[in-house]
Amino acid sequence: MRTLTIEPLTAQAFAPFGEVIEAEGREFFLINNGSTRRYHRQAEVQTSGADDAAIISLFHATALPMPLTITMLERHPLGSQAFMPLNGQPFLIVVAAPTEQLHGDQLRAFLSNGRQGVNYRKGVWHHPVLCLADEDDFLVIDRAGPGANCDEHFFPEAEQCLLDPASIHRG
Amino acid sequence: MRTLTIEPLTAQAFAPFGEVIEAEGREFFLINNGSTRRYHRQAEVQTSGADDAAIISLFHATALPMPLTITMLERHPLGSQAFMPLNGQPFLIVVAAPTEQLHGDQLRAFLSNGRQGVNYRKGVWHHPVLCLADEDDFLVIDRAGPGANCDEHFFPEAEQCLLDPASIHRG
Repeated sequence: MRTLTIEPLTAQAFAPFGEVIEAEGREFFLINNGSTRRYHRQAEVQTSGADDAAIISLFHATALPMPLTITMLERHPLGSQAFMPLNGQPFLIVVAAPTEQLHGDQLRAFLSNGRQGVNYRKGVWHHPVLCLADEDDFLVIDRAGPGANCDEHFFPEAEQCLLDPASIHRG
Repeated sequence: MRTLTIEPLTAQAFAPFGEVIEAEGREFFLINNGSTRRYHRQAEVQTSGADDAAIISLFHATALPMPLTITMLERHPLGSQAFMPLNGQPFLIVVAAPTEQLHGDQLRAFLSNGRQGVNYRKGVWHHPVLCLADEDDFLVIDRAGPGANCDEHFFPEAEQCLLDPASIHRG
């Protein structure tokens, strides 16, 4: 079984999947008489219809047993979904670019440093939240509205990949 | 000069101004095969026109000198604005309900426990971000789009209030 390479999370590497939400190394402008730096528009919430809403939720996640066999991914065809870590703890991300023909060799894995959030664009395949700490909390900004907005894809055994935090290259 | 009473931040007390974003004491449902609690729809992002977007930004704030004389508030007539603390640090909130006739006696002050965010609804008067730590970071979800979306109101000296963290009643 292929073991996924866990890449550092950078805007460039993550571009096919969405935005990285972070301040480090980013442009900002000053507001509030100079007391606040605004790192503007790190990500945009995507919705679909006129009856859709952009909503803010909280996720309290518990760790899955690692190493983890990736047996499925999900996607939200009608809206983006952003995850921002609230405890500064690193977490893992497994994604694949939008496609109707998803296969195991399209998977990519990333490591957030705990100060980085991600925004999955509409239709981007992703694994449910993968915290590394035993428990973690995330602010989630996604879309509410009519229609089916969660597809799941299950990989045949030959396409399953292994996600192993021990393989993280801390370069 | 009136010293503002600093109230604990609760959903009920904050209802005239917007939503409190928090997990503590809230309903949730389980997702991801039971590994994640979703505290659904703590807040909704309000926008105005078809060309508007809901956007995600980061604010890096520095503390203002305390006690602080509140000389002004601002409002965003075209969209909501949510602040979620990213370092678990308590922060202060000064607000007034939407009105065209804003006066100093309408001001209310609240203390977030550091795990609570707030969402100011469209038109709610609020002070620019008020962190209590020397520096703090917030995820901000608000509205981008055409048109003027920031009004400022400056209080005459007789209507100014004092915000004094030393007055926090830790009951």
